[in-house]
Amino acid sequence: MLITPQAYKERLSKLRPKVYIGGQKVQDILDHPVTKTLVEANAKVYELALDPQYEEIMTTTSPLIGEKINRSLNLCQNNHDLEMRAAMAVLTSQKLGTCNYRCPGCDVLNGLASTTWEIDKERRTEYHRRLKEFVSYLQKNDLAVSGGVTDAKGDRSKRPLDQDPDMYVHVVERRSDGIVVRGAKQHQSGAYVSDWTVVMPTMAYHKGEEDYAVAFAVPNGAEGISYICQYNAYSAERMQAQDIHELGNPVYGQRETSLIILDNVFIPWERVFMCGEVDFTQRAVARFAKMHRMNCGGACKVGFADLIIGATRLMAEYLGVERAAHVVDKLTEMVRISETSHACAIAAALKGREEPEGSGIYLPDDIYSNVAKLNTCYGFWDIMALAGDIAGGFVVTMPSERDLKNPEIKDYLEKYVKGKAPAEKRMRIARFLQNWVAGLHGVATWQGAGSAQAQKLTLYRLFDFEGRKNLAQELAGLEVNDGGKVNQS
Amino acid sequence: MLITPQAYKERLSKLRPKVYIGGQKVQDILDHPVTKTLVEANAKVYELALDPQYEEIMTTTSPLIGEKINRSLNLCQNNHDLEMRAAMAVLTSQKLGTCNYRCPGCDVLNGLASTTWEIDKERRTEYHRRLKEFVSYLQKNDLAVSGGVTDAKGDRSKRPLDQDPDMYVHVVERRSDGIVVRGAKQHQSGAYVSDWTVVMPTMAYHKGEEDYAVAFAVPNGAEGISYICQYNAYSAERMQAQDIHELGNPVYGQRETSLIILDNVFIPWERVFMCGEVDFTQRAVARFAKMHRMNCGGACKVGFADLIIGATRLMAEYLGVERAAHVVDKLTEMVRISETSHACAIAAALKGREEPEGSGIYLPDDIYSNVAKLNTCYGFWDIMALAGDIAGGFVVTMPSERDLKNPEIKDYLEKYVKGKAPAEKRMRIARFLQNWVAGLHGVATWQGAGSAQAQKLTLYRLFDFEGRKNLAQELAGLEVNDGGKVNQS
Amino acid sequence: MLITPQAYKERLSKLRPKVYIGGQKVQDILDHPVTKTLVEANAKVYELALDPQYEEIMTTTSPLIGEKINRSLNLCQNNHDLEMRAAMAVLTSQKLGTCNYRCPGCDVLNGLASTTWEIDKERRTEYHRRLKEFVSYLQKNDLAVSGGVTDAKGDRSKRPLDQDPDMYVHVVERRSDGIVVRGAKQHQSGAYVSDWTVVMPTMAYHKGEEDYAVAFAVPNGAEGISYICQYNAYSAERMQAQDIHELGNPVYGQRETSLIILDNVFIPWERVFMCGEVDFTQRAVARFAKMHRMNCGGACKVGFADLIIGATRLMAEYLGVERAAHVVDKLTEMVRISETSHACAIAAALKGREEPEGSGIYLPDDIYSNVAKLNTCYGFWDIMALAGDIAGGFVVTMPSERDLKNPEIKDYLEKYVKGKAPAEKRMRIARFLQNWVAGLHGVATWQGAGSAQAQKLTLYRLFDFEGRKNLAQELAGLEVNDGGKVNQS
Amino acid sequence: MLITPQAYKERLSKLRPKVYIGGQKVQDILDHPVTKTLVEANAKVYELALDPQYEEIMTTTSPLIGEKINRSLNLCQNNHDLEMRAAMAVLTSQKLGTCNYRCPGCDVLNGLASTTWEIDKERRTEYHRRLKEFVSYLQKNDLAVSGGVTDAKGDRSKRPLDQDPDMYVHVVERRSDGIVVRGAKQHQSGAYVSDWTVVMPTMAYHKGEEDYAVAFAVPNGAEGISYICQYNAYSAERMQAQDIHELGNPVYGQRETSLIILDNVFIPWERVFMCGEVDFTQRAVARFAKMHRMNCGGACKVGFADLIIGATRLMAEYLGVERAAHVVDKLTEMVRISETSHACAIAAALKGREEPEGSGIYLPDDIYSNVAKLNTCYGFWDIMALAGDIAGGFVVTMPSERDLKNPEIKDYLEKYVKGKAPAEKRMRIARFLQNWVAGLHGVATWQGAGSAQAQKLTLYRLFDFEGRKNLAQELAGLEVNDGGKVNQS
Repeated sequence: MLITPQAYKERLSKLRPKVYIGGQKVQDILDHPVTKTLVEANAKVYELALDPQYEEIMTTTSPLIGEKINRSLNLCQNNHDLEMRAAMAVLTSQKLGTCNYRCPGCDVLNGLASTTWEIDKERRTEYHRRLKEFVSYLQKNDLAVSGGVTDAKGDRSKRPLDQDPDMYVHVVERRSDGIVVRGAKQHQSGAYVSDWTVVMPTMAYHKGEEDYAVAFAVPNGAEGISYICQYNAYSAERMQAQDIHELGNPVYGQRETSLIILDNVFIPWERVFMCGEVDFTQRAVARFAKMHRMNCGGACKVGFADLIIGATRLMAEYLGVERAAHVVDKLTEMVRISETSHACAIAAALKGREEPEGSGIYLPDDIYSNVAKLNTCYGFWDIMALAGDIAGGFVVTMPSERDLKNPEIKDYLEKYVKGKAPAEKRMRIARFLQNWVAGLHGVATWQGAGSAQAQKLTLYRLFDFEGRKNLAQELAGLEVNDGGKVNQS
Repeated sequence: MLITPQAYKERLSKLRPKVYIGGQKVQDILDHPVTKTLVEANAKVYELALDPQYEEIMTTTSPLIGEKINRSLNLCQNNHDLEMRAAMAVLTSQKLGTCNYRCPGCDVLNGLASTTWEIDKERRTEYHRRLKEFVSYLQKNDLAVSGGVTDAKGDRSKRPLDQDPDMYVHVVERRSDGIVVRGAKQHQSGAYVSDWTVVMPTMAYHKGEEDYAVAFAVPNGAEGISYICQYNAYSAERMQAQDIHELGNPVYGQRETSLIILDNVFIPWERVFMCGEVDFTQRAVARFAKMHRMNCGGACKVGFADLIIGATRLMAEYLGVERAAHVVDKLTEMVRISETSHACAIAAALKGREEPEGSGIYLPDDIYSNVAKLNTCYGFWDIMALAGDIAGGFVVTMPSERDLKNPEIKDYLEKYVKGKAPAEKRMRIARFLQNWVAGLHGVATWQGAGSAQAQKLTLYRLFDFEGRKNLAQELAGLEVNDGGKVNQS
Repeated sequence: MLITPQAYKERLSKLRPKVYIGGQKVQDILDHPVTKTLVEANAKVYELALDPQYEEIMTTTSPLIGEKINRSLNLCQNNHDLEMRAAMAVLTSQKLGTCNYRCPGCDVLNGLASTTWEIDKERRTEYHRRLKEFVSYLQKNDLAVSGGVTDAKGDRSKRPLDQDPDMYVHVVERRSDGIVVRGAKQHQSGAYVSDWTVVMPTMAYHKGEEDYAVAFAVPNGAEGISYICQYNAYSAERMQAQDIHELGNPVYGQRETSLIILDNVFIPWERVFMCGEVDFTQRAVARFAKMHRMNCGGACKVGFADLIIGATRLMAEYLGVERAAHVVDKLTEMVRISETSHACAIAAALKGREEPEGSGIYLPDDIYSNVAKLNTCYGFWDIMALAGDIAGGFVVTMPSERDLKNPEIKDYLEKYVKGKAPAEKRMRIARFLQNWVAGLHGVATWQGAGSAQAQKLTLYRLFDFEGRKNLAQELAGLEVNDGGKVNQS
Repeated sequence: MLITPQAYKERLSKLRPKVYIGGQKVQDILDHPVTKTLVEANAKVYELALDPQYEEIMTTTSPLIGEKINRSLNLCQNNHDLEMRAAMAVLTSQKLGTCNYRCPGCDVLNGLASTTWEIDKERRTEYHRRLKEFVSYLQKNDLAVSGGVTDAKGDRSKRPLDQDPDMYVHVVERRSDGIVVRGAKQHQSGAYVSDWTVVMPTMAYHKGEEDYAVAFAVPNGAEGISYICQYNAYSAERMQAQDIHELGNPVYGQRETSLIILDNVFIPWERVFMCGEVDFTQRAVARFAKMHRMNCGGACKVGFADLIIGATRLMAEYLGVERAAHVVDKLTEMVRISETSHACAIAAALKGREEPEGSGIYLPDDIYSNVAKLNTCYGFWDIMALAGDIAGGFVVTMPSERDLKNPEIKDYLEKYVKGKAPAEKRMRIARFLQNWVAGLHGVATWQGAGSAQAQKLTLYRLFDFEGRKNLAQELAGLEVNDGGKVNQS
């Protein structure tokens, strides 16, 4: 099933989530200047899925329901699915300049599909059956799903039970009909404009922490849920704009997140996908992570980089410097960085494997998905720096387009801001770039899908150092495989 | 003469500059939420000069008037002057978290002092005498002076006379009592809260472009001058703030610039310091540049880095991660970057020379002032990235402090935002860091005092490659000094 | 056909190429301590192809002759062929610690196969037919083929005809039975231990330079050919070694190249694959280049990195520092660098395409093969630096293993060189690493398959900036596709 | 006293140190091709001190003996001394292309001078008196002094007493007339061509490890001392050279080190400068380290970089590419890197302080000397990479100059190796660069004066984070100085 953007908006208009921004409750999320950008972004993703030219990327046929579905709801069954999943991330970033807000939900569902299959097999539970039924339901109704992973965490030097126990989402009551959960999830991109949020653990839990090993789905607007939105300079700018074209990403805005509060929320068993299986939490997290590092960490940022590269090249032309050797060199470096992440994401998809064997779920290669994200971490800041170099100081000292409407200074601006292109064009592209190089993207790109440190730990854990030691020993003329058995002479 | 902050504000309140921001004319620059931050920053610089603990750094005795003056008005007479000039840049950055708006004016005056001495000597002009009298007047009244350098430029692939001639400030009329100038200067930090602006050429001019080889001083509010301010998300955030403590740099704000329009402005001869001497323009620009690259490019950003490092360390403590090996490593790297720029600025000051000999004016070493700025260009983005890594995604997804005042969600926030420190503290420091890592500073730091490319060209031009070729030839057993005489065999 | 290492050596022993090293003519290339390392390396490649565990990587079935062949002689017919071609590069590097000397020949043959097909189609020539027959002959006899690309070049600021015309290989005579060529090819890895060398142009030629647009095959030892070998410290070390185990890569040595002189060499028409078609030279070079940048530039260096990483980890264990946080961090960074190149090579292979359509020849994706090489350029020096950091100064200050045999100092060495492992082991691995971090590899890795600048130019030329400009315009609210039509207002 | 190079050689010829290289005992260190390079390098340092044009840099007047001395024997008394000490390091590197072998000795003497003054003051010992008398003796005779710091270390995860106790140099017997010491010092540059070696601890020792807290001077050739030299490819190349002009640094060679074995060596009390004062070891090490990081870590490598930059520029001219934009950019980057280290060394010298107050000994600033070295660590590899990029693959694939003497191939080489310059010149400079970019320098530069990790730990320990936290708190509107008192809310 593929619904129209309009149908999505209508469905959404019937929900009444408790959303707060800048100290105020939002009356209508379809109307508030900030929250509306998320609605428009999601609507665009619905629209792209109906566009024949993007059919292969944006849709697939679900083996669960035998119908064409939005790829955001697909459980990957093969390498082509993974490749198209990453391609969707590139495309939606190119078209939105912000999140496809259905992205984390998709990756959480895939991570859980793999893990629930394994739990069911080993523990004779019903999680995988439930998850498949839930996904079928989502697919049949083309529902928007968000994913909730990162907990509040409190004091990072302490385990959950050694501090305020609510710092990590956990089960506070087990009932015959379901469970009651409490806690909060940070950095939730687009949760309040989705139909559902799927929540999973943020880290590996140990014996004794069973209440924290919990995964479930919860509908937007459920009893006990509040969303406290991010608020920053860009929020203020949008709330104060007289015309959205004053803004850097006029329609879709910046990536908007919220803190979801889960205050004793009831979840019926049929929507619970893990409850107490601490020994599966590490796997669940790692599997979600590699999907998300390929998509959000790698591919998505390629789409963003395309926008920055395109705008920077335009600005170079507006200024008449596009043939300068250092400009060519810098644009090339931006391409190298972006296409490196792109290559890593593609390798992650095409070298992905069924995991676990027999599950029917394909997940990306661990090493390449993690290096995809790491390269993005390091590279995206460089792309920002290079764009700022070429585009010039004007990107951060520019006046407002409103000044172009003030007759006292309009002529001055048109005269003194023009390059080879007229002032208005230059201001539009400068504002567009300002959004990228003087806003949230540096940190967001680094932290999204896990900070660099998380990928490093994963790489170190996964890499087969023993095998490489053997190779070195063989060539160096040492006994192979005695690396671990070093003796004191 | 040293006046009080209050006296500065009173004097300023008597001026009526035409200032526009976000499409509106500013009625009172002491009162508008944005323009007021510049007033407060300047007032703080007056205050620091009166503070005994900063006396050596912030003040000196002028040989021109024999009185104690604010160092921002000093013409450097020796290496200690240069060293203290750079130290002032570090200190004001640490105390303001934004520009000392008297900084570019100081560096323009020094660059011109050196050059006018030389022009007078070679051409028997009166520029240096005029400049000294003007500086004496400034010192006697402790006036705030801004510097205007960067022109509008238009099509960067064309010289001034091959396009709209107003793209560079130039003389449009020479009269018996003075000159009339037209054009605009971009990126003017703090011009409209200064008493005077000193304007100089932005680049080397050639024969035939004499009208562009012009330097002069003009009072704030002079007939024909308009200031069109930058306007961006951070402007909007401040204009919409209910309490300045919601903001990242509550009192002093971000670095605020404007585009100064000079629409047929009359300058009496006594305030003209260069007029037509194209063959001195390259020197004038290079001398200003090395002062400004040492101070604004190098030292100033050390003060900013100190603030980021301090805040990042605080945040690490709030989160309980300050002893993690990777956090220690990243903080150390931030220190390395910052102290490298610091060392370069100090070497530039202490290896500076009287230039030209006999002028009595000391300017920084060329090589070290340029590497100071270049290292800052490359390093500041890295400092931002590292701060964002340690401080976490919260820095860009945080809600507003206003939410802490909304009783419906106050408790949620206090509970879920706390680390080892309470929510409010964490939010304050996160907002403070947001201002640094998700705002204007990356591009501003790169472009301020000239983009990286400008420093590279200067370094390449200045470095004695011939001398190094000789050293290599000597050791390699080749005839020394024949590098230039390579023969076709 | 797959022959044995022994058969290869026997065949080689019948050739009598003129090879010079260190001022002397080499009497027997199978016996000279330096040239012998190339023979052993090639022999190992023959051996690997016969090893069942490497069958999929090292061999394939040729559609030309319908037999199993060494993959070094395969013309790639699909993406799997490309993937396995890259996998072979990783494997042979891991096993040899130096070149698979059949690698450039393989990539030249593939680049020419694609181009000759196109020339034949457009010009009704016979190049492709000849090439296929030549390749069939190679496959049927499992011959070792080298590739010759880089010319002497002379004054790089001049075209071939504006200087000594022999600076680029060219046709000096066209006869009824063939052509006579003159010139030299630099950096020839393994040419004198191969059966044939295939020569192609090093750059794009223009109208008027038809004599330079020449590709052909020439047997080792042909009349008019001389090989002048590289000679450096590592050559001397090997020539002076009492036992090859004193050396860093005892059996296979360092990558050994020679300058091939072609002094009026006759080539029969049947071995000429291009002669005068200047308008195809750019394509031929680009196609060879992307094969070689995927394989030699990307994949091969992954195998080298594996050896360095393995040895570095071993050394860390020998010293007892393998758990230090900074050691873990550095090893992880080495992995990130290496696996990034790996991912790029894999993406290049799996996103490769038939080129030209209908030719049946598959070539790697342009963008990913070029970023594979560029990342290797930048990353390999970093891997060297990190290995040197962990392994310690001993890697460059170590004594010789011979000292272990001198009874006067043997005990001292065993006592003072030991770590957790005995002195001999530590010395072996230190010498092994010395070969990597204090030898030819930094420059070789940067320059092999073309210097970084070559990849940058290719990337800039290939990247679709127009498409990205459109994306930016669409989001910024500008008319799409007017980027090129900027108007002067 | 300043002696002549000839006098130095004559004095040296009377010593008979036990020196081993490549498994053989060296019969005459003035004659062996490898050990002779050290003699020549030291002789050159004697020569430079007599050259009037280098008088200010190479000499000073000693307050101890009231005579002109070689600066290598000076105890720094003020900032000018420190600045000239660093300048000497630049100069000798430029002139030698290898170590001034008197450099570590100089820095050890200064570190000990500061520390012995303090021990004497606190413990009423006689170390400082002895040291001053020893230095006076050295100055009066213009003796060459080496410094021994780095111990064998064995298992780095264990303290000295938890493993073979000889892994660190220590006192094995205390007698009425002196002490007996045992152990070994690694990486000793030039020790066997010096008159004396001054040994000091390599790290901070704890209570219980008093035997290891030992510093002393020992004459070259003393009973019980053996020197086991490094041996590597470059050693072999030199030993096999027919003419030193075949070599990259013909006269002075590469930096040659040895492992000094101290096998129960007797030291009379008058030459003991620390014995048991474990609580002063950290200080002694840190003080030596900052001298050495300024000089060897920072300044010395500036001289090396000058040689590389000069040679690279020459090669670019030989090839005709010196005006290519990317070549200019890369040369500029090499200059930036080198001059950054230079600036750091200068700032370290000029901001140095008397330490401890009253001692009369000036030591460099801690922060700047450590960043000098760290920047060199990171930058030197980059300089190597850039030189290799510009100079081309020929740097690592070049034949020998001997081939130019072989009539069979001489003409070929002259023809095909020439650029704009003749083959011989190009080969000389290529060989010169090979020595820099394909040899020991990458690791040596990183590890010399302590590995990067050592500087990082020092920087982290020294930097005033508390002060920076206060600055951030003040601006962010938080109570100042409560950073350490974070409360759990």
